[in-house]
Amino acid sequence: MAEDERPLEDDDVMLAETPDEGARPDDRIDDERMDEENTLKREFVQAVEDALEAGDEGEVYDLVEPLHPADVADLLELLEKDERTQLASAITDLMTSDVVAELNDYVREEMMEALPADAVAQIAEQLETDDAVQLIEDLDEEDQRAVLAELDPEDRIAIQTALSYPEETAGRLMSREFVAVPEHITVGGLIDFLRDQHDLPEDFFEVFVVDQRHHPVGTCQLSWILRTPRNIALSDVMKRDQTLVPAMLDQEEVALMFQKYGLISAAVVDEDGRLVGQMTVDDVVHIISEEAGEDALLMSGAGEGDINEPIREAYSARVRWLVANLGTALIASLIIALFGAAIEQLVALAVLMPIVASIGGNAGTQTMAVTVRAIAMNQLTRSNTGRILAREMRVALLNGATIAVLVGAATAAIFSPLLGGVIALAMIINVVTAGLAGVLVPVAFERLDQDPAVASSVFVTMITDSMGFFAFLGLAVALGVV
Amino acid sequence: MAEDERPLEDDDVMLAETPDEGARPDDRIDDERMDEENTLKREFVQAVEDALEAGDEGEVYDLVEPLHPADVADLLELLEKDERTQLASAITDLMTSDVVAELNDYVREEMMEALPADAVAQIAEQLETDDAVQLIEDLDEEDQRAVLAELDPEDRIAIQTALSYPEETAGRLMSREFVAVPEHITVGGLIDFLRDQHDLPEDFFEVFVVDQRHHPVGTCQLSWILRTPRNIALSDVMKRDQTLVPAMLDQEEVALMFQKYGLISAAVVDEDGRLVGQMTVDDVVHIISEEAGEDALLMSGAGEGDINEPIREAYSARVRWLVANLGTALIASLIIALFGAAIEQLVALAVLMPIVASIGGNAGTQTMAVTVRAIAMNQLTRSNTGRILAREMRVALLNGATIAVLVGAATAAIFSPLLGGVIALAMIINVVTAGLAGVLVPVAFERLDQDPAVASSVFVTMITDSMGFFAFLGLAVALGVV
Repeated sequence: MAEDERPLEDDDVMLAETPDEGARPDDRIDDERMDEENTLKREFVQAVEDALEAGDEGEVYDLVEPLHPADVADLLELLEKDERTQLASAITDLMTSDVVAELNDYVREEMMEALPADAVAQIAEQLETDDAVQLIEDLDEEDQRAVLAELDPEDRIAIQTALSYPEETAGRLMSREFVAVPEHITVGGLIDFLRDQHDLPEDFFEVFVVDQRHHPVGTCQLSWILRTPRNIALSDVMKRDQTLVPAMLDQEEVALMFQKYGLISAAVVDEDGRLVGQMTVDDVVHIISEEAGEDALLMSGAGEGDINEPIREAYSARVRWLVANLGTALIASLIIALFGAAIEQLVALAVLMPIVASIGGNAGTQTMAVTVRAIAMNQLTRSNTGRILAREMRVALLNGATIAVLVGAATAAIFSPLLGGVIALAMIINVVTAGLAGVLVPVAFERLDQDPAVASSVFVTMITDSMGFFAFLGLAVALGVV
Repeated sequence: MAEDERPLEDDDVMLAETPDEGARPDDRIDDERMDEENTLKREFVQAVEDALEAGDEGEVYDLVEPLHPADVADLLELLEKDERTQLASAITDLMTSDVVAELNDYVREEMMEALPADAVAQIAEQLETDDAVQLIEDLDEEDQRAVLAELDPEDRIAIQTALSYPEETAGRLMSREFVAVPEHITVGGLIDFLRDQHDLPEDFFEVFVVDQRHHPVGTCQLSWILRTPRNIALSDVMKRDQTLVPAMLDQEEVALMFQKYGLISAAVVDEDGRLVGQMTVDDVVHIISEEAGEDALLMSGAGEGDINEPIREAYSARVRWLVANLGTALIASLIIALFGAAIEQLVALAVLMPIVASIGGNAGTQTMAVTVRAIAMNQLTRSNTGRILAREMRVALLNGATIAVLVGAATAAIFSPLLGGVIALAMIINVVTAGLAGVLVPVAFERLDQDPAVASSVFVTMITDSMGFFAFLGLAVALGVV
């Protein structure tokens, strides 16, 4: 809508040219509790910690009371474990469902495990089904059963149905609260219906139109309804071509669908094509962020990589990849051992060999990061793998040649021209190998239905380390440096 | 809304128990052109390529016509450069603004550069302002001027205003189409106004309420309007406490705000607090995905890391970090050179030293990935840096001890118990150093107002390589292995 449509019934709404002295563009951003990145200031967190330590619950309450629920959740995450329980008990009536829904999974799990089953059930009943499911799926089975037993039968059935879908599928994550109406209704009839209902979802962005078998036949954004006269039939306003999310679809694919088609919400259907729930973009946003951010963690073998993950779990996730890396490092060592005699004769080989391996490792990691990202975004498919590989080979040749000239010249000057030639050649071979491995390792994982990010770097580094040592030491022997 | 509220005026809407034989839960997912990941099948892309090669424009058109605009954009991206222009000219009337808006930046830029200024202007005029800005900001200055000159004065001013904000700020990215109304209006008055307007934004999710100076005083989701009787004043329905986005705010902070507060859209205000635009979640979703995904690319020094980036740019982004890595590898080499005499005496040192460096590098990358992610998500702030460092130290000690036992025992068995002790000790030192570097390098970058992800791995690897060689060779000499 252009500038001239904005004013309505009142010309005074036109832009005033006098700046407002007392203007506070955003009271959250300007808040004295928040820093310029919209996170809680250290001084504020310290003040809460001091009040907690002094046992001054009134002061704690006064400090926390003005915060947005999302910031209360952040505050809980920033505190030490024992301070969290203390804080929660000082602000019980501020611990709303919004706070619980915003908490980090690990922090929520830890806090819920500290509470009795009926208290958890009380919180779960306040939450929307999808948030309640998140709360309960974290608990161990015994606690889950205890909490479910405390719930209202209606809520229990809704949550059990959600839990019957696999984790990280649309059926598990969807909200069971949505608005669905029959096709023949008019816009006026729909508005009257909505005004009469007292149990509508808090927020909804579209109205689903269903047939008699509860199959979606169309969808209508609220803005279309608002601008249509009362007597028009909804079937004349709705869009018939809509994106439906199968309940068994993985959350990663759901997130890509929302991104690709720019969705705000979407209907979720079961195997029979019946409308069973909706996914809204505010939930999908968390999934997008999680899925996009986890690749860096997975590539390095850091598992979930959440700073709130218990140390035991972080250790077990990471050490397995370090042990795998130990295995791959042994291979590189064996290759060096093959050339032990050459190294004994010319110790410069031992001095220079890590350079070839290190640059190869970095070049491989670069290509791998690009490939993993392209696969995750569905940009790299069977149709263009060949073209992307060719592209990466050209970049690798340029990179390899540049580094080879630099390192070759320096080595020739310090050691000997022959050794300079050997290291330059080895460098080109290794950077090209790195480019190949950086594309082919994640693509191979993908084709084997494995996550292409998981510890790809362990494999790529194994290849570049081994090739680096082999090419350099092998060429040195073959070309008669020693 | 629970199950029992769904049916409306028609009991037949109740769930039908008979499954529908012909049900097609999602015609996009089931589409014979799409694979199970909702990307275009190789066979389909091949068919388009074959038709292009045969010069059969009618066949090309028939193949592409049923596609969703987002899939037409995907198809263009999957093709080779020269095939793209050919395809575009075969399907001119299918090249809608939606296709152009969905295209990858590099592909769009390349295609726009091939077109004359008036053709680009024609496309820009079809687009919403924010998409038009994206189209035009890619062009070089001369082309930009030429296209702007071809535009309607109104569109030109809107786009020039947007371009006056720095790149990647809310002011540049926001949409200038939104609905703003004065406070005293009733729900009925608003609905009548919306019905009368013919130039409303295509989709909008909230109505902003502004005062006489055009400062936002509240916001009203469309669902609240729809369920409120006509005679109620909007000021009684609206929420006064809303999140306002300053026009100069960086897109990363905008994305974190949307995530944190679960926003669908938000008002953008200028320095004087006046409403100047809105950001909607469908645009923010792309930013979230981009920002979350770029960390893996930046850490490896792969720059933008887009598979559509021209080779020249990919080379220049990556080679600078490889050259930096060459510098850091030289430091590691110098350390090895210090111990040249020891290696000459015992070549086993040269064989084993890469193991210590490699495991340290991997452990450092793991910690760094976790730290960078936590900083990006605003989870790691000044309030908890100390606690996170302590946590990472404990994980590092556990990891270091595990690997030390394994590698120490094996070395003791193959070489000598003393050398086993040396490598075990060096391993613990290096993994703990890796943990320190993995936290402190990104945190230091952040404090220096640098992106913590940018090539952090080059620095972390420099530290772990150097420390690995130094600790292992130094201990070997100090403890009298040679």
